Amino acid sequence: METTFTGTEGQVIRCKAAVAWEAGKPLSIEDVEVAPPKAHEVRIKVVATGVCHTDWEYLYENKKGMRFRPFPLVLGHEAAGIVESVGPQVTKFAAGDQVIPLFLPQCQECDRCLSPKTNLCKRNWAKTQVGVLADGTSRISCKRQQIYQFLGVSSFSQYTVVPDTSLAKINSNAPLDKVFLLGCGVSTGYGAALKTGKVERDSVCAVFGLGAVGLAAVMGCKAAGAKTIIGVDVNPNKFEKAIMLGATECVNPNDDSKSIQEVLVEKTNGGVDYALECVGSPVVMSAALESTTDAWGVCVIAGWTETESMSVVVEKLLMGRTLTGTYFGGWKSVEGVFKLVEDYMEKKLKLDEFITHDLPLNQINQAFETLKSGTSIRTLIRLWEKEAPAEEVTS
Amino acid sequence: METTFTGTEGQVIRCKAAVAWEAGKPLSIEDVEVAPPKAHEVRIKVVATGVCHTDWEYLYENKKGMRFRPFPLVLGHEAAGIVESVGPQVTKFAAGDQVIPLFLPQCQECDRCLSPKTNLCKRNWAKTQVGVLADGTSRISCKRQQIYQFLGVSSFSQYTVVPDTSLAKINSNAPLDKVFLLGCGVSTGYGAALKTGKVERDSVCAVFGLGAVGLAAVMGCKAAGAKTIIGVDVNPNKFEKAIMLGATECVNPNDDSKSIQEVLVEKTNGGVDYALECVGSPVVMSAALESTTDAWGVCVIAGWTETESMSVVVEKLLMGRTLTGTYFGGWKSVEGVFKLVEDYMEKKLKLDEFITHDLPLNQINQAFETLKSGTSIRTLIRLWEKEAPAEEVTS
Repeated sequence: METTFTGTEGQVIRCKAAVAWEAGKPLSIEDVEVAPPKAHEVRIKVVATGVCHTDWEYLYENKKGMRFRPFPLVLGHEAAGIVESVGPQVTKFAAGDQVIPLFLPQCQECDRCLSPKTNLCKRNWAKTQVGVLADGTSRISCKRQQIYQFLGVSSFSQYTVVPDTSLAKINSNAPLDKVFLLGCGVSTGYGAALKTGKVERDSVCAVFGLGAVGLAAVMGCKAAGAKTIIGVDVNPNKFEKAIMLGATECVNPNDDSKSIQEVLVEKTNGGVDYALECVGSPVVMSAALESTTDAWGVCVIAGWTETESMSVVVEKLLMGRTLTGTYFGGWKSVEGVFKLVEDYMEKKLKLDEFITHDLPLNQINQAFETLKSGTSIRTLIRLWEKEAPAEEVTS
Repeated sequence: METTFTGTEGQVIRCKAAVAWEAGKPLSIEDVEVAPPKAHEVRIKVVATGVCHTDWEYLYENKKGMRFRPFPLVLGHEAAGIVESVGPQVTKFAAGDQVIPLFLPQCQECDRCLSPKTNLCKRNWAKTQVGVLADGTSRISCKRQQIYQFLGVSSFSQYTVVPDTSLAKINSNAPLDKVFLLGCGVSTGYGAALKTGKVERDSVCAVFGLGAVGLAAVMGCKAAGAKTIIGVDVNPNKFEKAIMLGATECVNPNDDSKSIQEVLVEKTNGGVDYALECVGSPVVMSAALESTTDAWGVCVIAGWTETESMSVVVEKLLMGRTLTGTYFGGWKSVEGVFKLVEDYMEKKLKLDEFITHDLPLNQINQAFETLKSGTSIRTLIRLWEKEAPAEEVTS
C-alpha cells in the first residue's frame, strides 16, 4: 500500500477512532484530533489492527485481574501502519516507512537492551503503562479532552503517535493487513516457545489455550522441531486450526474425569518437556506446570493477568521443574518484529491462518463479541474502509 | 582413618544405631542387626554423620509439610564412612574405600544420568523413598523387626547397607569427620547457587535462611564471583558465620516494618539478580521470588517441603523472573561428591566452619535440640566414640 502524505506534517490531524469512554461500555466511533509528534516521536497512519484479548480485558474486566488504567482511552496495541511524519531528533524513520508500533520499547541503549538475557526495555515504561507518552501527555484528544493511549499505542485510531523507540521499521513490501499480527499475539506465542521456553528438537510439548497466542506457540514448537505437540482447549472448534499449524493431537480437558495434568502425565509417561500457558488463568497455569515432567520440565506463562496469583506445589520445583513467563515472546521488540516480518515474507512463519474475520473500524464492537464468544481467532480491523483522506485542522 | 575388617564379610553385624520407633518421640539407642549386602549393594561402616533439618522434620513434623514415611526408622542421610564389604556384582567398590552414601543415586545408565539437564536419577527411587532397598526390604533389623532405612541410607547406625549406585567413592585421605557434610546440606546449598542458579560474576544475590544449606549457598555465590551477597535470617546469631563465608551484609527481616522483599528491592534498586531460598517455608519462598529484579531475576528453592504450596504473583513471572528448585544442589551425585571432596582437599571449599558441635551417637537427641533452637549449624555425630569392634552374630 503506497500512501503519500501532503500537507499534514506539523498539523493536527482529525480522523476516526474507537474511543472507550468508560470501562464496561462498548467503544464509540468518534472524530479525534491527533497532535503532531514531539521530539523522538513518530506519527503513523494505522492501516490494520487486531483486537487482542488484552484490549477486551481492559475494557470489560477492569479491576478483575487487571490493574486500573485511566479512561477515556483509545485501545488497540497490535497493528501495522505507515509513517506519516516524524518529530524532531527522529533519525531512524521517515514518512512512508512501513512500521509496526510496539507496546514494548527497544531503546538499544539501556542495560536491558544491552543484555542478552532480557527484552524488557523500560524506556518510557511507567508513562506508557498509564496511557501517556514521555512528556506525560497523550497526543490524542476528543471533544477537547485528552484521550489516553493504551500502552502508548492506541491503534484503534486512524492515526496515532508513538515514541521512536516503540516502533519497528519493516519490509516495505510486507502486507500490513497480515503482519499487524506480529505486533502482539503471534510474536508472543511464537517466542514463548522459541525464545523463552527454548523448546528443543524432538521434545514433547503441550500448549494450553488455542487462541492466537496459543496457536502461535504451537507454530513455535513446530519450528523448534518438537516431536509431539499437544493442543489443549475446552473449545474443540479450535482443534482443526491447531492441527493445521503443527499440533500432533488435541485434548479437551472436559472430555475426562481426571484433571488435564493427570491426563497429560499419563499420556506422555511422566509429563511433557514444555508446557506453554496461553490462557491467562491461574488455575490453568498450575495445571500446565503440573503437566510437565520432573527433572527438566519447563512451564512458560504467556497468558496475561496483572493482579492474580497462582499456586505452585513446591515439590514440583524441587523435582527439577522451571517456571517462567514471557513478555512479547522474549523478542527484543524492534529487531524481533523486523525479523519475524522477514520470516513471514520467506514463508517460514504463517499469519494468514490466524485471521478469521475482517471488519471495518465502525464494526469493532462486533470483533470484541466474536473474540469473547470464541468464534474468532483474530479479527482484522481495517482502519480505512476506503482510502479516505484524513481531514486536517489547523493547530 | 584406617580400618581393617576381618571376618565380618557375609555375616550379620550387630552394632549400635539410633532408632526412631515412632514419629514425635526422641531416638532410642539400640543394638541393631545389619544384614550383609545383596547384589549391587555395599555395606559401610559409618564414621561420621550430620543431623540435618530434614531428619528433624520427618521425626517431629510428619504430616506437617512432609509425606508420611513408615516407622520404625533409622534416620540420617548426611554421612561418610568406609566400605566394610560388597555384595555380588559390585565392581566399583572394595573393602576399605572411603565413601559418602547418597540419598540421590547416579546410576550412569538411565536417560536422566545421560542428560546434562538433570541430576535426578530415579534408580531405586520409589523404594528408597519408603525406606527399603531394591528388593523391597531393609537390611537393618532390631528386636526381630525390620527397621526402615531413611531415604535408603540410615546413617544414624554404625553400619548400613546402600545400593552401589547410591555411593560416592572419595579421596582416601579425606577427613571423614569433615566431608560427611557433602552428603547433603553443603552440597545442596553450594550447588543451588553454582549449578542450579548459575549465579554469575558481579551479580547481586540474596540468601534466605543461614543454616547449613544457606551458608553453603553464600559460599556458592562467593565462588561464582557475586559482588553483593545479602544474608537474610531472623536469627542474627547466624550473621557472623555468613560474613565469614562470603556474605557482604546481613539483614534481619524483623528489623523493618516493611516486608523483606520491599527492603531488598529498595536496597538493590530494583531487586537482586538471584535469590536462594534455604528455609523450606512457602511464605519465605514467595518473598524470595519477589526480592528478585524483573527482566532476569532467578529464584532457586533449596529449602525442603513435600506437601506445601507457595503463592506466585503471576506478573512477577511475566516480567521476566524464573522460579526453579534444586535437589542435592543439581550435582550428579557420584561425580559431584567426588569433585566437591577434591575441592575441599584443595581448600577451594570450606567445611570446618559448618561444624559447631561434636557429639557421640548416644547424645544424638541433643543434636536435634540444638538444631531446632538455632544454636547449631551442624552437629557432627561420631558413630564410634572409641574404636570398638563390631559384634558379630551368625546369620
